[in-house]
This record gives sequence, structure tokens and C-alpha cells, in this order.
Amino acid sequence: MKEECGVAGIILPGDRPQSNTVAFKLYYALYALQHRGQESTGIMVYDGTSSHSIKGMGLVPDVYNKDSLGHLIGNVGVGHVRYSTTGGSKIENCQPFILNFKGGAVAIAHNGNLVNARTLKDELECEGRIFISDSDTEVIGHLLVKELIRHDPIESIRNVMRKLVGSYSLVIHIDGAIYAVRDPLGLKPLCFGKVDCGYAVFSESVALDTLNGTLIRDVRPGEVIVFTGDGFESHQIGNEPHPAHCVFEFIYFARPDSIIDGKLVYKVRENIGRELAREHPVEADVVSPVPDSGITSAIGYARESGTKYLEGLMKNRYIGRTFILPGQELRETAVRLKMNAIQDNVKGKRVVLVDDSIVRGTTSRRIIDMVRRAGASEIHSRVGSPAIIAPCYLGIDMATRQELIASYKTVKEVESLINADSLGYLSIDGLMRALECDRSDMCLGCLTGEYPVEIPGENCIRKQTRLDDFDNKPESP
Amino acid sequence: MKEECGVAGIILPGDRPQSNTVAFKLYYALYALQHRGQESTGIMVYDGTSSHSIKGMGLVPDVYNKDSLGHLIGNVGVGHVRYSTTGGSKIENCQPFILNFKGGAVAIAHNGNLVNARTLKDELECEGRIFISDSDTEVIGHLLVKELIRHDPIESIRNVMRKLVGSYSLVIHIDGAIYAVRDPLGLKPLCFGKVDCGYAVFSESVALDTLNGTLIRDVRPGEVIVFTGDGFESHQIGNEPHPAHCVFEFIYFARPDSIIDGKLVYKVRENIGRELAREHPVEADVVSPVPDSGITSAIGYARESGTKYLEGLMKNRYIGRTFILPGQELRETAVRLKMNAIQDNVKGKRVVLVDDSIVRGTTSRRIIDMVRRAGASEIHSRVGSPAIIAPCYLGIDMATRQELIASYKTVKEVESLINADSLGYLSIDGLMRALECDRSDMCLGCLTGEYPVEIPGENCIRKQTRLDDFDNKPESP
Amino acid sequence: MKEECGVAGIILPGDRPQSNTVAFKLYYALYALQHRGQESTGIMVYDGTSSHSIKGMGLVPDVYNKDSLGHLIGNVGVGHVRYSTTGGSKIENCQPFILNFKGGAVAIAHNGNLVNARTLKDELECEGRIFISDSDTEVIGHLLVKELIRHDPIESIRNVMRKLVGSYSLVIHIDGAIYAVRDPLGLKPLCFGKVDCGYAVFSESVALDTLNGTLIRDVRPGEVIVFTGDGFESHQIGNEPHPAHCVFEFIYFARPDSIIDGKLVYKVRENIGRELAREHPVEADVVSPVPDSGITSAIGYARESGTKYLEGLMKNRYIGRTFILPGQELRETAVRLKMNAIQDNVKGKRVVLVDDSIVRGTTSRRIIDMVRRAGASEIHSRVGSPAIIAPCYLGIDMATRQELIASYKTVKEVESLINADSLGYLSIDGLMRALECDRSDMCLGCLTGEYPVEIPGENCIRKQTRLDDFDNKPESP
Amino acid sequence: MKEECGVAGIILPGDRPQSNTVAFKLYYALYALQHRGQESTGIMVYDGTSSHSIKGMGLVPDVYNKDSLGHLIGNVGVGHVRYSTTGGSKIENCQPFILNFKGGAVAIAHNGNLVNARTLKDELECEGRIFISDSDTEVIGHLLVKELIRHDPIESIRNVMRKLVGSYSLVIHIDGAIYAVRDPLGLKPLCFGKVDCGYAVFSESVALDTLNGTLIRDVRPGEVIVFTGDGFESHQIGNEPHPAHCVFEFIYFARPDSIIDGKLVYKVRENIGRELAREHPVEADVVSPVPDSGITSAIGYARESGTKYLEGLMKNRYIGRTFILPGQELRETAVRLKMNAIQDNVKGKRVVLVDDSIVRGTTSRRIIDMVRRAGASEIHSRVGSPAIIAPCYLGIDMATRQELIASYKTVKEVESLINADSLGYLSIDGLMRALECDRSDMCLGCLTGEYPVEIPGENCIRKQTRLDDFDNKPESP
Repeated sequence: MKEECGVAGIILPGDRPQSNTVAFKLYYALYALQHRGQESTGIMVYDGTSSHSIKGMGLVPDVYNKDSLGHLIGNVGVGHVRYSTTGGSKIENCQPFILNFKGGAVAIAHNGNLVNARTLKDELECEGRIFISDSDTEVIGHLLVKELIRHDPIESIRNVMRKLVGSYSLVIHIDGAIYAVRDPLGLKPLCFGKVDCGYAVFSESVALDTLNGTLIRDVRPGEVIVFTGDGFESHQIGNEPHPAHCVFEFIYFARPDSIIDGKLVYKVRENIGRELAREHPVEADVVSPVPDSGITSAIGYARESGTKYLEGLMKNRYIGRTFILPGQELRETAVRLKMNAIQDNVKGKRVVLVDDSIVRGTTSRRIIDMVRRAGASEIHSRVGSPAIIAPCYLGIDMATRQELIASYKTVKEVESLINADSLGYLSIDGLMRALECDRSDMCLGCLTGEYPVEIPGENCIRKQTRLDDFDNKPESP
Repeated sequence: MKEECGVAGIILPGDRPQSNTVAFKLYYALYALQHRGQESTGIMVYDGTSSHSIKGMGLVPDVYNKDSLGHLIGNVGVGHVRYSTTGGSKIENCQPFILNFKGGAVAIAHNGNLVNARTLKDELECEGRIFISDSDTEVIGHLLVKELIRHDPIESIRNVMRKLVGSYSLVIHIDGAIYAVRDPLGLKPLCFGKVDCGYAVFSESVALDTLNGTLIRDVRPGEVIVFTGDGFESHQIGNEPHPAHCVFEFIYFARPDSIIDGKLVYKVRENIGRELAREHPVEADVVSPVPDSGITSAIGYARESGTKYLEGLMKNRYIGRTFILPGQELRETAVRLKMNAIQDNVKGKRVVLVDDSIVRGTTSRRIIDMVRRAGASEIHSRVGSPAIIAPCYLGIDMATRQELIASYKTVKEVESLINADSLGYLSIDGLMRALECDRSDMCLGCLTGEYPVEIPGENCIRKQTRLDDFDNKPESP
Repeated sequence: MKEECGVAGIILPGDRPQSNTVAFKLYYALYALQHRGQESTGIMVYDGTSSHSIKGMGLVPDVYNKDSLGHLIGNVGVGHVRYSTTGGSKIENCQPFILNFKGGAVAIAHNGNLVNARTLKDELECEGRIFISDSDTEVIGHLLVKELIRHDPIESIRNVMRKLVGSYSLVIHIDGAIYAVRDPLGLKPLCFGKVDCGYAVFSESVALDTLNGTLIRDVRPGEVIVFTGDGFESHQIGNEPHPAHCVFEFIYFARPDSIIDGKLVYKVRENIGRELAREHPVEADVVSPVPDSGITSAIGYARESGTKYLEGLMKNRYIGRTFILPGQELRETAVRLKMNAIQDNVKGKRVVLVDDSIVRGTTSRRIIDMVRRAGASEIHSRVGSPAIIAPCYLGIDMATRQELIASYKTVKEVESLINADSLGYLSIDGLMRALECDRSDMCLGCLTGEYPVEIPGENCIRKQTRLDDFDNKPESP
Repeated sequence: MKEECGVAGIILPGDRPQSNTVAFKLYYALYALQHRGQESTGIMVYDGTSSHSIKGMGLVPDVYNKDSLGHLIGNVGVGHVRYSTTGGSKIENCQPFILNFKGGAVAIAHNGNLVNARTLKDELECEGRIFISDSDTEVIGHLLVKELIRHDPIESIRNVMRKLVGSYSLVIHIDGAIYAVRDPLGLKPLCFGKVDCGYAVFSESVALDTLNGTLIRDVRPGEVIVFTGDGFESHQIGNEPHPAHCVFEFIYFARPDSIIDGKLVYKVRENIGRELAREHPVEADVVSPVPDSGITSAIGYARESGTKYLEGLMKNRYIGRTFILPGQELRETAVRLKMNAIQDNVKGKRVVLVDDSIVRGTTSRRIIDMVRRAGASEIHSRVGSPAIIAPCYLGIDMATRQELIASYKTVKEVESLINADSLGYLSIDGLMRALECDRSDMCLGCLTGEYPVEIPGENCIRKQTRLDDFDNKPESP
């Protein structure tokens, strides 16, 4: 099941036994990661003997309250925010996945997507195993527990990693310790740092900022870090020659104030704007972002091109849940409610409209129409990513190939469909310059159709090293 | 985990494929069984391909609504209401337990208590199996699926039954068929009947009445009945010489309008009142019930003794959730809110107060004090059951031996503690006369401390026949 | 607007200033009066300077919680529960009606119905006054405040009473004192008593029982009682030669454990059953009530006739909100869900079915059909009130004349319509014997079509004395 | 009572009678005006005979849903969003204020603050009038209805306006027509336009944009516009030589994409940034806004100064309700949750931090500390308004004089308190240049302590013309 998620883990070894500090800190961390998943959320803490948890559908402030968090006693815990478009949203899929087995209580928070989940599930079902949810996390849970009854946690995790194909950034609680696990290609982000007297591991560094923590570094591709009362210990399980970081985290998904794999997302997006200006210059009066995701690139484009930066569109800050109404007229009203063109800023002007990406193209078309009705004389669409031509199988819920506007169309055709006077996508090379890295270190599946892992029916550009060959020497902090 | 529950299953083979009739009928059936569990409820239906479910904490009208039920498409389904005092009440324990495995979707609704759940769970955990909930039902689920991947459903259920010790009335959905399963001693009730074009199986016959159905008969101890599109088929798996029906269902738990194991509960309770009048006659002015559970026995007592039946206590029909307030004064107010003495009906009178049973004795004491303050000159407590002296391990949440007022006290001591002028318990023989059956056919564990199954640290009065020796010839309707 | 309501007022002069005891006591009192109104409820308390209030739609436990009640500081307060079928249920109609005027804060809780509300409203609107709600209470509020700016509270209330025609039992808060007001005919009940260090006034005495208070007496027709820090003082404002107590409170509306106008409702209903047995004897096997309202009369009937009392119908104790489903079949299911026939208790038997009253007749028909299907050989309907032939204009929401089954039909016709083997209504004389009072002291409008106040288009049996002629001498406790 | 509010009115004369289009359009309009009030909201529609309404506490999406809006039938309606810090927030204060009187149904939505509300209320209370709420709107309601029973609506409104002192932008429904009323000084905004086949009047033009409407113009100070089925008609009631538009709407309160009194708010704020750069230049590396309110001015400052625009702070888009936790540490966490410094963008840099205004100064201090901890070498605070030295009595909930940091402190003292390296407020003259208007046309009360209306204990800079002298000639569209 395709899932976008945020994961969190905190351990405060010196905390007094009856404290709920970890629960409150996880709450704040998940709030800071809310952009990674708005459908459900859960927190589990462990008090040395038993685990306590809250799970629910909805946003962080809907699921938790002061009273309920106050009862979550324990100095180590795991949290999760989740969004999924596949299948019905149901409470059974809410993470962290908490399970009891012979050896105690385990909780798993997972961000990513297993490519071989179906195969693994089939094998487990043949053993007579049962599944309660639709999530990949339950598959990982079964595999892990099978190992844990015979091996120590690190050995167990290593054995599980040998079986998994796909993206997985995991925060696992086993018996009072937190394990941070990142797949050998480092597809989805995961970082850790110091918080108070202990440690924390999060999908993005903004959660560390929120807790006034200090970022230590990213969890490395193929690395397992165990956090205990005595500090942390690193185990390099996988050792791929190149990582395959998800490029879309930088383009759109992550918060601009996060540092992912050593790169400030804000900086990358500003660079994207600059590269875009170099690749697709145009004579214009103003550069305007499509808020909020296009803002940083638009600032970069404006600075590089010397064109005036002026906001042509304003976003309603209060838009949350709104219901869909029958009739074309009211549907368009809902769109205008979310975003409004500032007539004076675009009327009679040649506008460069900078957006982060174009997926289906329908929103782009609506926004361009809105700006055109507001009187813009020319609208030049500039897009902070190359054309998205292939689906993501590794954790971003994008669309099917059929739904992607650029899959089977030329740039000229897309330009015409979205009703722009000109359309300029950033090139892959330009994107790499913005990222200041080599394309061999990124996953560009959605831009090229070539994936870093084998996906049935798709091209694979590299062969994953067998995990069996990894060495596994602990590294101390 | 000790659980009181109600179970339900319906199959309407001729129903049109897109119908939600089964879901609505299950809703009404669970409403009729609400007295068996008020903590959580769930419904699962199966449309031939996939299952759809709703689960939630609270009462039936809190969990379901017209819209949500409307989406539950399928012509076969399983439902559950549940109450538990052990451990925190959490969504994970809500039934039916729905699981996916190699062979498809299974749903299990369970009423009862396994005595060997811990042992079975240990064995399963040693195989690396994981547990999400605290309920016995998950144990049954694991055992069942282990069999189902190798055997047909009937063979699988038989093999599972060989492993289970304790009480279990199960309604199981496997692959579009409903299986009704009752433990070899028939501890908890389970009956089935005709509903419209199909069949239904319920904990109590009132649910059949509600659906305008016709009771066929009780599921027999040790029997498995499979309901398919073509009718039903019986398989006698266990064959104990005597059943051990739970006596407390008749004394208190079941609705008076239910017929359980061939006996109308109302009739049993009226008989109890008559027997009580014969065993413990007293010169009095009025016979009054403790409402609602003492009403039927009080009517019987009054008729047998020729004493006037007059309600001395009135119950507030609107009492549902009420919060506990600090301070003795307000706590007593909450008690008076639930029940009020009618001064004119008891003032200056010798009152026989008939209750169904005495567990901890605290409520009895409060009620007797209330009637005394209202001016009764004498209060003679008559109890429609023998003294409860031992805990129940087989499905009724009663109390620990320490909490039971009669465990270590004489009748005189209890009489004094509850402040009654006289106290008369029904004898076990009197109870058997009321039930019109032999004590060898009932479970009297809570009254004698002797249980029909082996319970560590308790006396077992009989040795359970090995299920291996059962024959298994299908019987057609 | 026709309203059924419960009113409450408490003053605890010695209570410490910052206490919320009055609020919690009002909460319990309203819970005890919940049967008088389930649509909305409100509590206002006054702390000597300002008033604090909570209002909401729904049942008492839905509207208040421990936290919110805890903030209601004050040692005097007024509460209300309300049910209305006229017009949409809206928050604006929720009582007590709380208003601010020159002289301070006033709160009014009203039970009853003004016959001349429209006329009074017209007059007030001609003065340019505005109305926020549809309730009669706002009319009373305007009239009262017009007086209060020139007169003292007692004089003001007297002047208002001169204008009001209809039924009104009022609990009014003015400036730290509680005023209990009952219309000159004493149509709706109102009583008061001692609670702790103070006084309380309620629609029914059960609320006093709940608070462990002591009933002092009913508020007399035409009496105003003021409760202050120093005790209470009575002012007889109206002085009708005869009261006109609502007979339907005794027949159906009030709780059986309430004492209204000196009569225990339970006793009246038992007498009703006895009178009914004398007036309409029948050879039968069992006497069964229609629960819950027919229980007490059925007990009386059974005793008087010597016929066996046996419950043929069982009510589901958990029925609260249930939704109406499309289709005849499911609608009937909803009926069976509420009430179930006990087949064994009626099969092959001649059943006397005792109900409190017949309004539209549809429910009676459904119940008789249910008992018939359960196998009763004969069903003799016995009704604890005379035939209801005319609407109530004075506070009970009954039905229009067209909807009343007995308005234009003979007893034989009704008997046939409800499908009974025989039908016996209690005579008015029999009812009076049961009430042990004279028909000149009761309002029998719904039974005779003759009303104690002038109602346009209806007969009036008496001329109301002009309130101007009342003397007004204070009486001390 | 000091209130910040948004008002809305729509009339679609040609709409089919049973339509709920007006209700849905009001819903969208209020959503677009949500920034003007988040505490409560209400909608009333009128179907030619009766009015239908929904009111509730909370945000627009919390109060309304598709079903409830669907029942609001009518082709004319009024809506309101409200925020108040004075007194408890209670349902009684929720607007529009809907009242019934002799002549029919009236609904009033009010934005503003009456300076003489207490005096008017006293007079009305002396007439025996009663008040349900604490809001000024109820005062206006009483005055209006007093007139309406003798005069036509326009005459009535004119007579009411003669009595009101303070700010008031009103949308009033009387008998199927909408009246837009703005006080003679035009303190709070109000504009109207064409929507579909009808007209709409709103606090801000963004609501018109949302409904795809066309702005016609602002309602003029002292103007009453009546919208009926036939179009609209203007009546100039007041005729002050100069308006006194609220300057704070431009500085902070209004949405940047609104056009108020002919000025695009975005443009004013950009100009503010430019003027600020001219008045308070500083050698710096980057210009960063305090999001969201400082963004536009920061863009202007950056452009004028030629300094690089770079976002040093990122706002969490998901922050809504969050609870306050005990302890300094967790309180600071809550602050960081709302806003996060981007270390790379400020580290080692001289930062110009542009905010819209400084009220109490506590937030400014916290933000500057956060940026400093992120490594900024210098922080130069630039504020897009002059120092706020006096309270607002005319509709903006600011603070008391004691709470305002600049009331009794020099700029140097404020600079030191907020821990800035330098602090520059925009001058009043600079603000006027940004607004491109004369200071005699604005209300600068909060900046000068001199108010355009007489306020007890404060300076008044002008004498309001008597409304009696106004001429009143209708102007047609």
C-alpha cells in the first residue's frame, strides 16, 4: 500500500520513571511532521514493563489531548503520522504497529513502500500467519518477530533487511531501546539528534528544531542505529555503492526548513529557481509563485533573472476540511476559496508563474485560468522539476502513468493543455546542479521511469548488492 | 481476558448482491443484545469478494449510523457487542476479530473465556506469531488459520476445538459461510433460527424475535453448524455426557424474554421466586423487587406467598453515563438518582425485598438503607440465587474471591453486613427445581467452587472427554 | 408553543461564595426530571454579582460535564429540561430564559402553556419589543421586566400574573432570590422542600428525593413563594375557588414515585387499575401491562380481579436514539426492538392488556398485533383513562382532534381499529375515585373538551376570577 | 464589547424559491472572511415567509455541514464571523442577531464597536427592555425595531444612525431586502458587488472574488444601500467632511488580496516596506519577514534597499488549536512549533527582520531570540507601522495602554526589551505615503491617542457633524 508518512522515536534514559515527557515531545514532533501525513496518527510509549498507546484517525490536534497524553507514561516511545489514498482509511492501518510476542512488546513506525510486500505476505500467509491490516508494516512486523525469537535485535533486523525490497525508514521499539533503520538506498529521509538528556530520530530535522534538539546527522543508507540508555551504536548493514535519495522530497514533499541528507531543502529550492531562470529565461514583468510550494523557487528565479518578485496569488490560511458540492459552479468556488488572484499584481502584466511540479495538470490549468481572468497579458509557466513521466513505487503517492499529464505528451502539448503562453520544465541536469549532487546518488524514477530497485514491468537501472555480503562492525558515537 | 459478550451472524443467500440488509439486521440484532456488552461493538459483512466492517467503542447507537451501515454491502455477516473490565478498554480488542490469510477473509465473534488461553498463546508466540490485542479471540484466530491452510473449515474447526479449554460460543465467517460453534459443555448460550430467506445465529433468541425470525433450536454443546447458501448442516464434534450450562445466564445475565437451552428465562425466574417463598417464608406486608433484575422473581414470590406485590423502589429510566463526583454526599446522590424509594409503599411496612443475587454486597446495603430511611419497619432480603462463593473463570465478570461478600462469611454475617432483618438465599436444590433440570447439567462454579473444566488451583468435578474420540457425522436439517 | 418541561430552582444561602454545589445539585435534579423533557436543557447560577450558564440541545448527560459544571459558581440557580414538537428545535428556545435589564439579571424556567401568548406578544411587539425565540417564556420575561423597573418583585409578578391566561409553573431568579410561581388553577405541578441548608423548588418531588431533601408541600394554585437567604415567604396572589390540576400528569406524564398535589402518583395508578377491574371485569388467564407506563395499573387490576399478573411484553432497556429506516419491514423491526412479546406467557391465553391511555391508537394496534402473533387466544384491552377526545391547550403535547382516535369514534369502533377482543376505558367517575378527589378540582379538558380557561373555539366550564380581587398577605413558614 | 468581525449579505432575486444557493454562497464567503473572526459564526436566510438559521461556536467548517446548509432555503441571507476576547465566549453573542417583531423578521450582522453602547443600553433598559447577549448588535436591534414599527426601513436606519457613536459596518436583513450600512466615518470596511443574478455585500472584497463576483465599490461613509429584487438604491445619510478609515486594517487585519476603500492592501504593504527602507536603511545581508503578516512589507523593503530577500523563519501550516502545557520548557516548544528559524539562511548574517507591527512586544522578543540562537550576527527589527501607543476603542482588539510596549517607552527602550540590534518604526508620514492618502482621512487613534469620535478620557480630534443635517437623496445604480 502506497503511503506517505512521518516517523518519530525518542528515548530519554535519565527521565524519571513516571514521566510523560516523551509522550508530549512526540506529540510536538508529530505536529512538526504533520505535512507528511494527515490521515491518522499514533503514539506508543514504554515504561519498562508495559506499553501505552493512543491511535486515531485525523490530525494530531484531533487525536491527542492533554489528558490522554498525560496518561502515556514511559521514557521511550515511537510516533507516526500517515496519509494513504489506497483503500479505505481505517483504524487498523494506523501506525505505529504495536504487537506482542514471546519476547515482549514491539512497535514499528514505517515510512516508505515495499516493492515485494505481496510476495513476502504470500510466504507468510503460507505459514498460516494472519494479517489484520493492509499495511506493509505488518509484513515487517511478522518478519521481525520471526527473527527475534531466535536472534538478538540487530541480527534480527539485519535478517529482515535481507528480505525487504523497496524504501523503508523505520523507527522500531524493542524492549526499551529504539532502532533507527534506513534502507540500503536511503530512499526516504531519516535523521537523528540529541534532545535533552537523550536521543531522537525523525523523518525530518524540523522535528528536532521544534524540540530544541541538535541534529547529529542523517541515518546512513543501510544503517541501523540502536539508541539505549547508554548512548547509540551504529551498525552498517547494507553497503550500496550509491544511495538513491528520493528527489521528490526536495522538490515538494519535505518542509523547506528541513535538512535532508546534508542539504537544506530551502537552499535546494532556491537553487532550482535560479537554474530554471538560466534554462528558461523569458521577458516578463513579474515573477509570482504558486503558493506555498512554489515560493522559494520563485524567489530564486526572480533574483537570478532580475525580474520583480510579486505575489499574484494569495492562499486562504484557514482552508482545512471543506466539502465537495454538486455542480461545476460551486466546485470552482471551492478552488477560488483556496487561492485568489490579486488582480492589481497581474493585470496587464507578463507573469512568470513558478510552481514546484506538475502532476496531473488540472490544478495548473485552473490556476493559470484564474490568473488570466485577473488580466495577465502573458503567463509563462516555470516548473521546478523535470516532467514527471512515470509513477512512484517507493513511497510518494503520485498518480498512475495514465493520470500523469507528461507521460505521453510533449512539452508543447502540456503547455497547450494547461493554457500557458510558454512552459519550461527544469532539466534533470539543472536539478542536479541545484541539488549539488550526482544523478547516480538520487532516485529519479518518476522523472525517468528507471528505478533503483527491480519493479515488475519497469526498468531497473542498478542491481542491488546482496545484503549477505555486508559486513557489520558496530561504530560507536 | 474475562469478557461478557453477545455474538451474531446472519446469512441471506437469496439477497441481491448489492444489499445492505444483512448489515441493518445485524444492527438491530446487536441492539437487542446490547445488555450483553456495552463497551464496544463491531459488524463485518462479506460481499463475495471483500469484507466491509465498522468497529467502535460505545453503545450500538453510538457506533453505527444510517450512512455508515448503508455502505456495508454483503449478504453474509458477523456482529459483536462486548464488555470487559480487565485491562484498558481499547479499540484493538473490539470484535469481530477480522483477519486476512492465504485463503481469504475470516471474521470471528466470540462469547466466553478460554481457561488455557495463556498456554495456547505461549505456544503460538514460540512459533514467532504476533498478537495485536489482549483477547482470546485472536488466539482462536491464529489456531484456526493454521488449520485452514491445510484443511477444510469443518476439519479445521474440529482441530481447533481439540485445543480449546473453557467456554466458547463462536460465530465465524469463512469464505461466505457462517459457522456456529459451541463448546462441548455448552457453557454460554447460542441459538439459531430462520430469518427471511436465510438463517441467523445469536447469543439469545430475543435477537431472532426482533428480526421477526423463527427459533429453530439451540446450538448443541460440542456442535458445529455451517450455514451456506443451501441451508445448514450440523457436525457433532464434542460429545460430553452432560452439558454444563452457565447458571448465571438464567439468574441474571440473559434477558427474561429469551429462551435458552429450551427454557424461557422469565419462567425460570418466576419459579425462582416461588421456590424462594417456599424455602424462606416470612410474615410481611409487601413483596417488592429490586428493579429491574428482581422483578420477575418478586412476582413469583408474591404469588406463592400470597403477600401483596408492591413496588417500593423506582428506577430512573434515563440513567446512562453519569460522572463520579468527589465527596461522599454527591456520591450518594448519584445512587439515589439511579433508584428512588417510594415512601408510601414501604413506610411502616414489613417489606420482602427480592433481588436476583448478591455479589459484593455494597449495592444491597445501599438499597436496604434507602428503604429503611423511607420508613420500612422490617426488611427481609430474599435472593434469587444461592450464595456466590467463588469466582467465574468461564465468561462472567463477577469479582475475585476476596471481593465476593459470601466467600468467607456465613449467611448471618452477610445479613448483618447488608443491614437486613433477615436474609434468605435460594438453595442449590431450589434453583434446580426452578430450572427444572439436574445439577449435573449446569455449571455451578460460582456457587460451589467446583468447575466443569480444570482450572489451576480450583476443583474440577469432571474430566472432559477427549475430543479425539468424537465422531463427526453431518446431520441435515 | 406547546411545551412539556421540568423546572428546578435551588438556593443555598449558607453556601460558601465560590461553591459550585448548586450547579451540581441542579444537574442531579434535572437528571431526575429528565422524563419531563429530552430535547434541551439549561442551568443558570448566580454568584451575587454575575450569572453563569450552560445550555444545550440533548439529554442532561450530553449537555453538561464535570468540567463545565465546575465553572458554574453561585449559591442560587435555576434549571430546565424541555421537550417540544412545535417548530424546529433550536438553541434559542432552550431555557432558562436568561435576560439582563436595568435592575440586574433575571432567569425564568417555565412549565406550561399560555393560551393568550399570541395576544400578549402582539401587544409587546406593538411597543417595538423584539423576540429572539418562539417560547412563551420570553413573553413572560418582557412582561416581568416591564414591571420590575417600577415595582418590587412580588408586586411585579402579581401584575404579570394578571395578564397571563393558561398554565404556568415558574421558577424565577431575580437578584439572588428564587420565586416559585404557580398559576391560579394549579394546572402544572410545582413543589418545594428543604435541601441541606437551603430550599429547592421542582416540578416533581422525585428531584427532592434525589437530593436527599424533604418535601415541604406543593406550591398552591395562585401562590408566589420567595426564597431568600432568610427562609421563604408565601404570597397568595390568585384565589380560585377550585384548582384545575392536570389529570394527565397522574395518568401518564409524572414519575410514579412523585407526590403531586398531595397524592402519590403510584397509588393513583394502582387505584386506577383496581377501578378498571371493577368497571370492566373479564374472564381471563393473565393480566399483563404495556410497559413501562401500564405496569402499576396492571398490578392494581390483577389484584382487584384476582387474575394472575404476568408480563407478556418486555421492553429493551437500551433503546434510546434509533434511526428510522425506509421500508415497512425495517420499520416494524424497530418496533419489535423496543418491545418484545414473551410467547410462553401469552400463548393460548386470554390476556388482559393494561395501558395508561390511548392517544392515536397506532401503537396500541401494533402491540396488540404483536401479542396476537405470539399466540394469545383473546386480548382484552383495558385503558387507565377515559377516552381522550379533545386536544390539550395547557401544556401536554398530545395531538390534534383529528389525530385522536377517540375524538369522533365510538368505543366499539376504536376496539375494532386496535384489533382488541374487548376494550374498556376507565370512566371519569372511576378516575375521580382513583384520584380520591372531585372532578371540579381537576382539569379534564382532554377527556371532556371543556376547559378551565377560555380557549377560542372551545367550551369553557368556568370563569376565572379576576386576579385584581386577590388579597395578598404574606405568610411565613 | 470589543469585537473583530466579518459580515456578509447576499440577495439573488431571480433564484428559484426553494434554493439553498444563497446559504452555500454565504458559507464560502464566510470561509474567505475567516481571518476576521474565528470564535463563532452564523448564517440566516429568508425564504419570503420565514427565516432559517445556523449558529455555532468555532470555525466555519466546524459549524456548518453539507446537510445543515442544504436545509437553509431562501434567496436572501446574512452571515457573520466573530472574534471576541471580552467576557466568556457564549452562544448568545453569536451573530447575526436574529429577531422577530411586529413587522416581521430582522437579522443584523455587525462589525465595529459602539462607543456609546452603555448609554444607549441604559436608556433602553429604562424603558423595560431586556437584553439576552452582551453584544452591541442587540442594542442596534432594539433601536431599529423601535423605529421600524413607525417608519419605513430607510427612515428607521437613518434615525438609528443618529443615535450611534462609534464604528459600524452593518448588513441588515428586513423583510426580504438587504441593507448595507456604514458609519459616517467609514471606520470599518464594507464593499459590495455583483454576484450571479444578484448582489452581495461583504467586509472585504476577497469574498466577492471567491464567489466569482465583481466589485462595484465600497459602501461610502454614512451611506445606506438597499438591495432588493430590482437592484440597489443608495441613501447618503451621514456626510462627514473627512472619513476616518481604520489604518490597522491596512497594516495587519485585512487580507492582502482585498481592496479596501479603493486601495489594494498588498500594494499598501509593499509600499510600507519601501518607505521603511528609505526611513530606516541599514547595512545588512538579508531581509527576512516575520511570516505571514510581514511578508509583503519585507518584499518591498528588500526591493527598495537592494538587499537580498531570504526567508529566515518558516511557519508551520498545520498549527491550529494547540494546548498550553505547564512548564517553561514545553511552552517554548509550542512557540518553536509555530515558527522555526532556518539556520542556514541567518547564520553569521546581518538580518533585517520585517514585521507588520509590535503590540505587546513579547512575540517579537521570542522571535528575535530564536533568530539569534540560529546564529544571526545582527538583527535589525523593522516595523511596518508607527509605534502603537494607545488602545483602540473602535473595533480592533489590541490591548490596554498598560499592555502596549510603546505606550510609555522610548524606541531605544523597546529596542532593548525586544533584544534587537536596531529598531525602526515607520513614521506616520511614511505610512501616509504608503497609503497614498492624507492623515485627515484615516483613523490613527492607536498611533496618536487622538480619536475621530469622542471617547471619555481620551482626546477627540474632530467634532462629528450632526446627522440631522444630512440630506438624503436616493441615488440609483
